[in-house]
Amino acid sequence: MNQHILLVESDDQKGLVYKITKILFEAGLNIEKNSEFVDRVHNRFYMRTEVTGTVDVTEITSALTKALPKNTQIQLTHRRTKNIVLFATTESHCIGDLLIRHDSDDLSAEIVGVISNHASLESLVAKFNIPFHYVSDTGMDRKKHEELILKTLSKIYTKSPIDLIVLTKYMRVLTPDFVRQYKNKIVNIHHSFLPAFVGASPYKQAFERGVKIIGATAHFVTESLDEGPIIYQDVVHVTHDYTPSDMKRAGQNIEKSVLANALQLALEDRIFIAGNKTVIF
Amino acid sequence: MNQHILLVESDDQKGLVYKITKILFEAGLNIEKNSEFVDRVHNRFYMRTEVTGTVDVTEITSALTKALPKNTQIQLTHRRTKNIVLFATTESHCIGDLLIRHDSDDLSAEIVGVISNHASLESLVAKFNIPFHYVSDTGMDRKKHEELILKTLSKIYTKSPIDLIVLTKYMRVLTPDFVRQYKNKIVNIHHSFLPAFVGASPYKQAFERGVKIIGATAHFVTESLDEGPIIYQDVVHVTHDYTPSDMKRAGQNIEKSVLANALQLALEDRIFIAGNKTVIF
Amino acid sequence: MNQHILLVESDDQKGLVYKITKILFEAGLNIEKNSEFVDRVHNRFYMRTEVTGTVDVTEITSALTKALPKNTQIQLTHRRTKNIVLFATTESHCIGDLLIRHDSDDLSAEIVGVISNHASLESLVAKFNIPFHYVSDTGMDRKKHEELILKTLSKIYTKSPIDLIVLTKYMRVLTPDFVRQYKNKIVNIHHSFLPAFVGASPYKQAFERGVKIIGATAHFVTESLDEGPIIYQDVVHVTHDYTPSDMKRAGQNIEKSVLANALQLALEDRIFIAGNKTVIF
Amino acid sequence: MNQHILLVESDDQKGLVYKITKILFEAGLNIEKNSEFVDRVHNRFYMRTEVTGTVDVTEITSALTKALPKNTQIQLTHRRTKNIVLFATTESHCIGDLLIRHDSDDLSAEIVGVISNHASLESLVAKFNIPFHYVSDTGMDRKKHEELILKTLSKIYTKSPIDLIVLTKYMRVLTPDFVRQYKNKIVNIHHSFLPAFVGASPYKQAFERGVKIIGATAHFVTESLDEGPIIYQDVVHVTHDYTPSDMKRAGQNIEKSVLANALQLALEDRIFIAGNKTVIF
Repeated sequence: MNQHILLVESDDQKGLVYKITKILFEAGLNIEKNSEFVDRVHNRFYMRTEVTGTVDVTEITSALTKALPKNTQIQLTHRRTKNIVLFATTESHCIGDLLIRHDSDDLSAEIVGVISNHASLESLVAKFNIPFHYVSDTGMDRKKHEELILKTLSKIYTKSPIDLIVLTKYMRVLTPDFVRQYKNKIVNIHHSFLPAFVGASPYKQAFERGVKIIGATAHFVTESLDEGPIIYQDVVHVTHDYTPSDMKRAGQNIEKSVLANALQLALEDRIFIAGNKTVIF
Repeated sequence: MNQHILLVESDDQKGLVYKITKILFEAGLNIEKNSEFVDRVHNRFYMRTEVTGTVDVTEITSALTKALPKNTQIQLTHRRTKNIVLFATTESHCIGDLLIRHDSDDLSAEIVGVISNHASLESLVAKFNIPFHYVSDTGMDRKKHEELILKTLSKIYTKSPIDLIVLTKYMRVLTPDFVRQYKNKIVNIHHSFLPAFVGASPYKQAFERGVKIIGATAHFVTESLDEGPIIYQDVVHVTHDYTPSDMKRAGQNIEKSVLANALQLALEDRIFIAGNKTVIF
Repeated sequence: MNQHILLVESDDQKGLVYKITKILFEAGLNIEKNSEFVDRVHNRFYMRTEVTGTVDVTEITSALTKALPKNTQIQLTHRRTKNIVLFATTESHCIGDLLIRHDSDDLSAEIVGVISNHASLESLVAKFNIPFHYVSDTGMDRKKHEELILKTLSKIYTKSPIDLIVLTKYMRVLTPDFVRQYKNKIVNIHHSFLPAFVGASPYKQAFERGVKIIGATAHFVTESLDEGPIIYQDVVHVTHDYTPSDMKRAGQNIEKSVLANALQLALEDRIFIAGNKTVIF
Repeated sequence: MNQHILLVESDDQKGLVYKITKILFEAGLNIEKNSEFVDRVHNRFYMRTEVTGTVDVTEITSALTKALPKNTQIQLTHRRTKNIVLFATTESHCIGDLLIRHDSDDLSAEIVGVISNHASLESLVAKFNIPFHYVSDTGMDRKKHEELILKTLSKIYTKSPIDLIVLTKYMRVLTPDFVRQYKNKIVNIHHSFLPAFVGASPYKQAFERGVKIIGATAHFVTESLDEGPIIYQDVVHVTHDYTPSDMKRAGQNIEKSVLANALQLALEDRIFIAGNKTVIF
């Protein structure tokens, strides 16, 4: 099935759905699914459309650009398997889960490489015949380290465009410079608690506070750390009987399930980034 | 805000969204939210649109009828508080929950009356100044009893049109004749278990089977009992420690929350009935 | 059935379960359910036992006191319906839910009075024939206001001992003096979010942050505001489509269900307060 | 830490907890955690105790046997990593999830072998250096096939005792004879729906019925198929937008999470089988 996804974001005005669907209709396309939402606070229009038929991407994009307001953003792409790169450090629960889902065809993505600042996950990644790039950060500053990462990404890129970078418990903070180069293309998984605990040993803090649920948040990475647009969140119940290490395990389980859910949404082009929030259809 | 909800259901063909939104645009209306789905099994198109502006319902409905395929169903209604009638027997958990939500303005509906085949809930309903109609079924067959209910509904109707009948643990089976007169307008709440237990004392059966979750299903009532289109379902975890009466209480709690959720969806005109299923936007 | 609940908390040492159950056995009692937990961080022992038989509370308590370590705390009480007082201000969702559960016999407690610093909930409470005590705080400081509340509580007390005070969105901060007088007997419901938002308009903050879940926390009140031992927490998923008022409604729904759950645990004597945490059997 | 788990099941009578803990105390052991429950329907007593100290298993078991009623069942085991064998056919989601958890040290068990009636999962299992035993069932009846499986299990057993057999979507029905030989030691994962769908293509049936949640059940295998004691169940919400293959994926995700949860409980010796039900501490 020849399927395309159209994402349109623009200032709201009357007739946008009509103008867009007119162009699709005149191009002989069929709309399979259409979702639209207006953010009334910022008067901003978001629409996602799944179309089938023979799509001339350039022509339709050009027609839409002409018909719609100045600051419209249009993305029209063929539905295809996305290419993702995983960043990891030493924790294996999230990367392991994605590797095994990938292996079971339960991940609508091609994992084109893994980049890590530690060597310890190499044997795990090797099991799945996925290129593992060890980019040590020893004895260098963040900027220098990221230059090496960018170089590695370029090498991966010559073979396959990179649609998404997934931080699977990557324990280095990315610089604003790096984030800008992969704007809206980096997804992170973050533990989070009720109430939220910051700083070192969040599980120990949660244990000491005696919380009854612990959670996880998947979000896009922006220049402000852990403050990017939230994609998905979930929690799991815990009891007084949980040791800090039980809490850690429960937390890791919810982290991997939240990350898998968020990734699925991103891979299906179902997410708009709307300022510091997401609109998800 | 002058808001209308447009529901369109029709056989699928190219250009439907375009044709519909063209008419809305030419009528000067603004689309706030639009959701569309095509059921590929039956090639059936469903679209729900929230519009603001000055709506001439007759004119737009007529224009849509002209522009769309023969078997299209169109419903264009002003967003307004719906009128509902509750049917009950003796159990108070669901009706009590709706009454108190209504009292706290947490139910987007006006409860215009309660009809019961028992007198026992009268004092509860009276607390909220809502008319209670005791229609005893003693000494009469189903048909005769329903005639009395229909008469009562007519009396309520002279004051306010009835948008929805909600069976809050109403323990009488409605005849196909009755159901046809309120087609797609009767919502029921049904206990349901994994695996499902039919017959008397479902909680006892669930207890004896040792299930670890119990659930509830809210659905529209059709001519086949408990087989109507499902609106919402949810479950709650139970343990070996639950007595049959603990299970019953847990079941009643999930019943009332499932019913409140389903009702909310119905009251916001977010549900299409698609054969024996629902499409919910 | 003549059922008692025994709660024992003490420094851990070998043989505690044996010593306790020996006394119960020699008194001819039967153990229906027994749960025990040792907090290894503080080396503290917690045990809850449900016993049936003819219990001489004084004698057994005295025997336990003799047999167990110095700093042991013992509570042995007949299983009975508890007396609770609700504190409220103007929001009706939590108090309404408890009143209707009470009316449907779905709350194992007697509501012996409502105290409010506003008059607005009086008619709601009156529906259920429960004494409403309006204790205005106009023109007086916190201390003076609490004196009036304590006086009201004393009057209620002459009729029935007060087992628990439930703050159902009571919007006044209680002084440490007041809290000390009802130590471990005050339960509060608190909105809470991921990440937690403090200050005014938490729902607006949550909306602006674009969170995907909102939650609630029920806890005992201690001298540090909102920092008491957590009893129960839960969350509900929200989407970009929720307005601040939708978020508020979702938040209120989760608040009332979390409060009802926590209260049930407290009313069944299933909670130990262990420092700033709870042990719940 | 030298930790043992004691499981005692017996007809209920007064003084059981006392008699058991007396023996533990006199043996110089410390009780870390103790849970007890009496099934009032069958007047049956269940108790699970975690003890630390130097345990003479034979001596304590013998003392308990002497002190307790005739039909008492006693299991006193050192807390150790259990050995499990996975049975699989062709579906990889459950086995893959267990293999990767095992690899990440998130499974308190040693996977000592995989037995499959198909060869297709061999390469997946080989990645993790776990022995894969292909036992084809081609051209033979169930009895003959199971003889070969039992022979394979014996070979695995010479190296390591088998604590548990886990059916990770093993698509052959086991004979009562086989089940008897591994009584209470076989765990199965079963899709299950509200209402439950039996027969072929359950996902297609669920799709056609328009259910809003789908679930999974992990249970012990008994001689009656899919009727064994339930360990854990859970569900996931689905919408009208799910195709049958989306439902299948959602179902597989909940299957693997339910199986992992149930397995964790079994591996920690937290489950009693009580007739056709489970008591889980």
